Amino acid sequence: MLPTNAYATHGPKEKLVPFSFDRRDPRPHDVVIEIMYCGVCHSDLHQARDEWGGSIYPMVPGHEIVGRVTRVGQEVKKFKAGDLAGVGVLIDSCRKCKPCLDGLENYCVEGMTGTYNAYERDGKSLAQGGYSTQIVTDENYVLHVSEKLDLKAVAPLLCAGITTYSPLRYVGVGPGMKVGVIGLGGLGHMGLKFAVSFGAEVSLITTSASKEADARRLGAHHVVLSTDKAMMKKYDSYFDVLLNTLSANHSYTTYLKLLGLNGTMINVGLPTAAGEVQPFALLKNRRSIMGSGVGGIKETQEMLDYCAEKNIVADVEVIPMQQINEAYERMLKSDVRYRFVIDLKSLK
Amino acid sequence: MLPTNAYATHGPKEKLVPFSFDRRDPRPHDVVIEIMYCGVCHSDLHQARDEWGGSIYPMVPGHEIVGRVTRVGQEVKKFKAGDLAGVGVLIDSCRKCKPCLDGLENYCVEGMTGTYNAYERDGKSLAQGGYSTQIVTDENYVLHVSEKLDLKAVAPLLCAGITTYSPLRYVGVGPGMKVGVIGLGGLGHMGLKFAVSFGAEVSLITTSASKEADARRLGAHHVVLSTDKAMMKKYDSYFDVLLNTLSANHSYTTYLKLLGLNGTMINVGLPTAAGEVQPFALLKNRRSIMGSGVGGIKETQEMLDYCAEKNIVADVEVIPMQQINEAYERMLKSDVRYRFVIDLKSLK
Repeated sequence: MLPTNAYATHGPKEKLVPFSFDRRDPRPHDVVIEIMYCGVCHSDLHQARDEWGGSIYPMVPGHEIVGRVTRVGQEVKKFKAGDLAGVGVLIDSCRKCKPCLDGLENYCVEGMTGTYNAYERDGKSLAQGGYSTQIVTDENYVLHVSEKLDLKAVAPLLCAGITTYSPLRYVGVGPGMKVGVIGLGGLGHMGLKFAVSFGAEVSLITTSASKEADARRLGAHHVVLSTDKAMMKKYDSYFDVLLNTLSANHSYTTYLKLLGLNGTMINVGLPTAAGEVQPFALLKNRRSIMGSGVGGIKETQEMLDYCAEKNIVADVEVIPMQQINEAYERMLKSDVRYRFVIDLKSLK
Repeated sequence: MLPTNAYATHGPKEKLVPFSFDRRDPRPHDVVIEIMYCGVCHSDLHQARDEWGGSIYPMVPGHEIVGRVTRVGQEVKKFKAGDLAGVGVLIDSCRKCKPCLDGLENYCVEGMTGTYNAYERDGKSLAQGGYSTQIVTDENYVLHVSEKLDLKAVAPLLCAGITTYSPLRYVGVGPGMKVGVIGLGGLGHMGLKFAVSFGAEVSLITTSASKEADARRLGAHHVVLSTDKAMMKKYDSYFDVLLNTLSANHSYTTYLKLLGLNGTMINVGLPTAAGEVQPFALLKNRRSIMGSGVGGIKETQEMLDYCAEKNIVADVEVIPMQQINEAYERMLKSDVRYRFVIDLKSLK
């Protein structure tokens, strides 16, 4: 067994505290990764506090993991010791259903195995995430990470990156399209970078006028203040695609109205409450709302390779593990530009 | 001016009563149609009772109109006296915006002009619908109707028909696809006929076990009782397309769960209240909800021609104009299989 240092929470109202546990010895197809950085995703907070229900404790959150391979199982072909590697939101799936065979393990019919807050496919081993010094994962669910990019800023690509890249690709965002990114947080700032990189005309839609300068620095062509009724009216029926990254509860109708003919709003945030959809607002312009959850392994690798080629990474604020509880509170106030990343040296 | 007999309502709590008014003399591009039959759409009731807000009185409802041309304006090229003709949900649009130029007048940027409960584009002439003996409409918004079909059963095609045909075509329903039609009313029974005719595997999803025999007669391969939890579970993630025709208020999440990977629920009913969407239910399987409102003139003609070729009409119960108030009450109880159609001889 591999003794591992971590931070865990023991219940919905508990803070994260130091925690030690054993990772399994590598099986033939396993890769052992010494974790260097782990991003802090809003869903870590949702799950740590059991806001979606069904949380399993003790819980070591974290699914934006990058590090260096220290050991591999005897059958491993994709990785060798010394390689950079990443682990994202899923560490396994049924591997037999049509989505799995099509590289859409994130939509596995039996349900993907989450990187933490989940039982592995044996139904009893508790998966623990990246707020820890190492992880042992089947090579089929491990990603290659380029040496070219700033590693701490790569970590958030494993969730915030693929979660925004995948649906923007799916709906075919490219030149000539008008894309609105709703919310400038961890997901939103990545969505903005990708949409700009794909050649679209991109607007940030936000409640905070203070984010305008940043949005423009990140490439936004327009900034729409959703609290400004006249501006919202001006952009009525304007967009082809909206990437809705809000994780706070909200009405979908407010934003739907911004979609033009055949426009689609992609929801990638996961608020705790249901959103409401006014039937006429959906009918007008033949609008759609689509949900999208992370991406498959093949597409995640494609995204990482694209980022290496285009020099795209997240904007991050690095913290030691010991500051995670404060980081959660600041994240709730959107006081981070735009992703906290834990430096795991702080746990060694 | 052309004196016209009709039934109208004078307020949200009023019954429909006999009403006389003048239609305009035909302009150069107008067609005068002696109305033979007019279907009774659920939206007639919504608007007569001001359930969507903004209703204009006195109101002569009716937008599923078929009849015979009695006169045409001097510039009319598409029609001549004696032709069968139909008028649907729209009688005008801006004719200049991209949707209008693309034959999607129903998505006109300035808003289409409804057949009733609307002002014409002069901003002052009140448009009155098909619960009347004749109508005068610009030829560009009048449809050709085949002599081959049973005319009274053709009337509902002008709204219930195109409203279901258009989105099923838009999402590409065809062989190999699993389609669920939610609700077996005026819209639902047409959606079911079209989906079957397009070669899909079609299920009716209903709260009424009593509709099973009819659904199978109309071509349904399966019937799913939405009140039966075990059956709903069995069809979890099953469908590629759902055609949601419900006009009563309901949660969208209940039905979303039936969609498989990349599945789309098309909403064509117009409940008065917003529907709720649970974020996880939308994310799973990358599901979508799409709104769709009737269809453009070109596609409506295509639909009517398709129906003539395939011998598709609505299942109707013919009533005299004088029974309209009872018909509304019966419609609210779903006590009609599946569309009331007014025989306008009763007004002459």
